[in-house]
Amino acid sequence: MDVFEAMGSARAIRYLKPDPVDPELIEKLIWAATRASSPGNSQGWDFVVITDADAKARIGGAVADAMAGIFREPPADADRSVRLMLNGARALAGSLATAPVLVLVCGRMVYPPGNPDEQLVWSACYPAAQNLIVAARALGLGATFTTFQRRAEQVVRGTLGIPDEVRMAALIPIGWPDREHGPVNRKPVEEVIHWDRW
Amino acid sequence: MDVFEAMGSARAIRYLKPDPVDPELIEKLIWAATRASSPGNSQGWDFVVITDADAKARIGGAVADAMAGIFREPPADADRSVRLMLNGARALAGSLATAPVLVLVCGRMVYPPGNPDEQLVWSACYPAAQNLIVAARALGLGATFTTFQRRAEQVVRGTLGIPDEVRMAALIPIGWPDREHGPVNRKPVEEVIHWDRW
Repeated sequence: MDVFEAMGSARAIRYLKPDPVDPELIEKLIWAATRASSPGNSQGWDFVVITDADAKARIGGAVADAMAGIFREPPADADRSVRLMLNGARALAGSLATAPVLVLVCGRMVYPPGNPDEQLVWSACYPAAQNLIVAARALGLGATFTTFQRRAEQVVRGTLGIPDEVRMAALIPIGWPDREHGPVNRKPVEEVIHWDRW
Repeated sequence: MDVFEAMGSARAIRYLKPDPVDPELIEKLIWAATRASSPGNSQGWDFVVITDADAKARIGGAVADAMAGIFREPPADADRSVRLMLNGARALAGSLATAPVLVLVCGRMVYPPGNPDEQLVWSACYPAAQNLIVAARALGLGATFTTFQRRAEQVVRGTLGIPDEVRMAALIPIGWPDREHGPVNRKPVEEVIHWDRW
């Protein structure tokens, strides 16, 4: 699929079919993720691919519990896209246990927390996560970029055995889509470009 | 261009021709960048497009000065790709003033520094930066993901008028390539995939 078509239609797919995803396709997504940029080509990223039912249930349960205290009904005056997003995020948090695959994108810390160069860990693993999202779209797979792992960090670490010094960047549920891909909803480009000065 | 072909050949292009780049192409890159994921579709990104010769000279001069104290000759036993990267990075730092376009990718802070959710600012602007890199490759433009702005933060802020509360994620020189795109050099996928457990 064409680059611009894939990026422009990589809508967050928050509803997934239960059908399994071929491990070769997951490897292709990780291949794409690892083509991303990183400072000095340091490639400070790791990917935990979770298909084990118990692990998904533990993580999904902990995230859903944590989110239950946060999510409310969308405000009555919220516009349609915000309502769809909030309802979709709630549904997604509640269905992590049944998503065919979860991919946890991790980063190896080069600098200790609080060091100004701590940001470098994110400058490798978030580009990788975005390549994965666009690649999933190109393969027709549904995926959503989330930071749900932050809501249940200790359960995620404990379940997967993530070392303390490894940072967790994104938790991406993946499967065959139960909603259609289509144009993403974004602000006009003019609002975010500054020519020569802020 | 196909998604996987573009990602797989989006080599960091550290040598650029002086020819100007049509502003419409830059807008297309920013369009692609803003198709990226962000938490709750918050789109917390801004892009400063720098073509002004004085601004480029000030920023380029400050970065080159700061880097002069850091870069050394590559170690004699460094392998070829590391030598090429170090020499290329030094050349790039020295040629920011003459790059046709610099794009500074910025993020709006949602949480104050030190807050655990500070990472959310990076989870929007680094995905956007990566989409820009892949889109540049698809258009045949040369680009390199750098964090050079961190070497001369006050000069960059002052020259461009970046507000204190805005974070700077990446500084990406863009132009027509003076080296060829080609397969990126990365670790094998098996080394970074963990199936079900770290």
